[in-house]
Amino acid sequence: MHELRKDPLQSRWVAVLADSKPPGEYRLLEEEVRESGCILCSGREKETPPEIASIRENGTQPNEPGWWARVIPSSKPILQIEGDLGRKGIGMYDKMNSIGATEIIIETPEHNKRPEDIGFEQMVRIVTLYRDRVADLERDSRLRYTLIYKNSGKEAGAIYSHPHSQIIATPVIPKRVKEELDGAKQYYAYKERCIFCDMMREELRFGQRIIFETKNFIAFCPYAQRFSFEFWIMPKRHFCAFQDIHADEIEDFGLILSSVMKRLGAVLKNPPYNYIIHTAPNRIPRRNHWHTLGEDFHWHMEVMPRLSRVSGFEWGSGFYVVTTSPEDAAKYLREA
Amino acid sequence: MHELRKDPLQSRWVAVLADSKPPGEYRLLEEEVRESGCILCSGREKETPPEIASIRENGTQPNEPGWWARVIPSSKPILQIEGDLGRKGIGMYDKMNSIGATEIIIETPEHNKRPEDIGFEQMVRIVTLYRDRVADLERDSRLRYTLIYKNSGKEAGAIYSHPHSQIIATPVIPKRVKEELDGAKQYYAYKERCIFCDMMREELRFGQRIIFETKNFIAFCPYAQRFSFEFWIMPKRHFCAFQDIHADEIEDFGLILSSVMKRLGAVLKNPPYNYIIHTAPNRIPRRNHWHTLGEDFHWHMEVMPRLSRVSGFEWGSGFYVVTTSPEDAAKYLREA
Repeated sequence: MHELRKDPLQSRWVAVLADSKPPGEYRLLEEEVRESGCILCSGREKETPPEIASIRENGTQPNEPGWWARVIPSSKPILQIEGDLGRKGIGMYDKMNSIGATEIIIETPEHNKRPEDIGFEQMVRIVTLYRDRVADLERDSRLRYTLIYKNSGKEAGAIYSHPHSQIIATPVIPKRVKEELDGAKQYYAYKERCIFCDMMREELRFGQRIIFETKNFIAFCPYAQRFSFEFWIMPKRHFCAFQDIHADEIEDFGLILSSVMKRLGAVLKNPPYNYIIHTAPNRIPRRNHWHTLGEDFHWHMEVMPRLSRVSGFEWGSGFYVVTTSPEDAAKYLREA
Repeated sequence: MHELRKDPLQSRWVAVLADSKPPGEYRLLEEEVRESGCILCSGREKETPPEIASIRENGTQPNEPGWWARVIPSSKPILQIEGDLGRKGIGMYDKMNSIGATEIIIETPEHNKRPEDIGFEQMVRIVTLYRDRVADLERDSRLRYTLIYKNSGKEAGAIYSHPHSQIIATPVIPKRVKEELDGAKQYYAYKERCIFCDMMREELRFGQRIIFETKNFIAFCPYAQRFSFEFWIMPKRHFCAFQDIHADEIEDFGLILSSVMKRLGAVLKNPPYNYIIHTAPNRIPRRNHWHTLGEDFHWHMEVMPRLSRVSGFEWGSGFYVVTTSPEDAAKYLREA
């Protein structure tokens, strides 16, 4: 089993894998192995671990063709579902077992589908699977958080070229999430309003950073973004947990997501990108530790095009340099 | 002038450049422009901005050949020295002028010198310039922090292939630094001991993560590192400000740094990497806001090989996956 270790200085957890890779196996990044055939394609269902969930044509069986979107456990999980947490100290340090979940959402049976060509209907299926998985994983009382994320393109860390997104459920609240929760909580303590609702009001009033608006969502480039052309998608209704999304909001989220991804692909010629959904922690810790969370947090998606390399300056400072202003980036994306 | 903007959620500052780059100018990362000749080489001193400092042969003049190492201002500075801070609010957001310093340290006149071949004597000169620049920039009362960092290799964000490191002085304490200061302060409040001194004692006792030790410094792979083969170099004497380094410690730092970089180059075949020096904030704010800082912070260098790409998981969670354990990585580096 892998080990989770806590950095005593920054309270950040890291996963240290059990079988250390020897130095010779770090290929030059340019020389990464090409997949010899793709096991995520339709027709190769028997070669993946058995599916956890899928949305498929009526009358077709699990682990057979006929699916539109499909969730499987990772065959090399970083975090695994069996076992106990095993928290313990070792000298001045802390560690625990790598309990959690590592899953892959196969977004389409078609290998060469570009993310920007995933239409509205298919996007609704993908979002539905996201919702179902977060709701299901939340029931495991050992788990504290479920992160949905997507790596698109080798430069953004994608391992498969087949369109996919990923789920990691962790037994701790991840540092970056905790920072957002804390920031939102501080704002709420001072203003008695949700910072995300305030940001949306400010953006709608100013207008220049808005990309697209639907009945239930807005997409905008944040005022102090980290990455050029970064944008966020946020529900207009205030609610903290993504899995509480209503059926009509799922449709609307599929609509805005397929629309803005299409614009991103057109403006930047299919750039590598990551996206993540930041939702509230699972309900049990939320009730205990985050009792105001329903009021002070607001789930959202962050989309980060990877147009430049992160350097020592960013790693050392957490200070980012944006080469296209959010006002200009929003204009390009809005007018695409 | 560029603009510094503050993210209201995470209190992170970003620099938004004044002239937005249009989308068409983001080349695919693979296709970055090659330098047509290198203005950092000896003989082209007149083509760079005038030097700020240098270590050179007796009798040679500034901005002429005869230097071993040289500091110049960046010709495209992110932060600039002229102007006032101009802090102001804009709606719910905050911004200020991009006051600060952006400098380049040319580490050798020889273009093709590999970082691992920079010997002890030359490394001492480089470290001396680091010390001098931090001490000088600290005198500017508008500035709060000076970060020394190095990007080596295109994958690590290097713009020049000529060996160089960089300095950015900022009018705010950067987020990543503040997190370390806060973590160290909390530990000190609880234990009444410096966390870095405790880490060194723990590492020396355990032994398996130590790479190399000199009279005044140790180099080790941290227990909960973010990057495989990451290591830290730390002075054994407790002091918070890098620029207070003694002359004999500079010699010793040059020795350990040239030794461990040579090992890194040998074990991983000259990988791309970043390093940063984390020192205490400048004295004025240190006196005001960080009054215990002399006791609770301890400067150090963090060296981060860039062997894999950062994905949406790390961006979304701040949770890192290490594929070679620090114990194994230290063994490879120790035995190289």
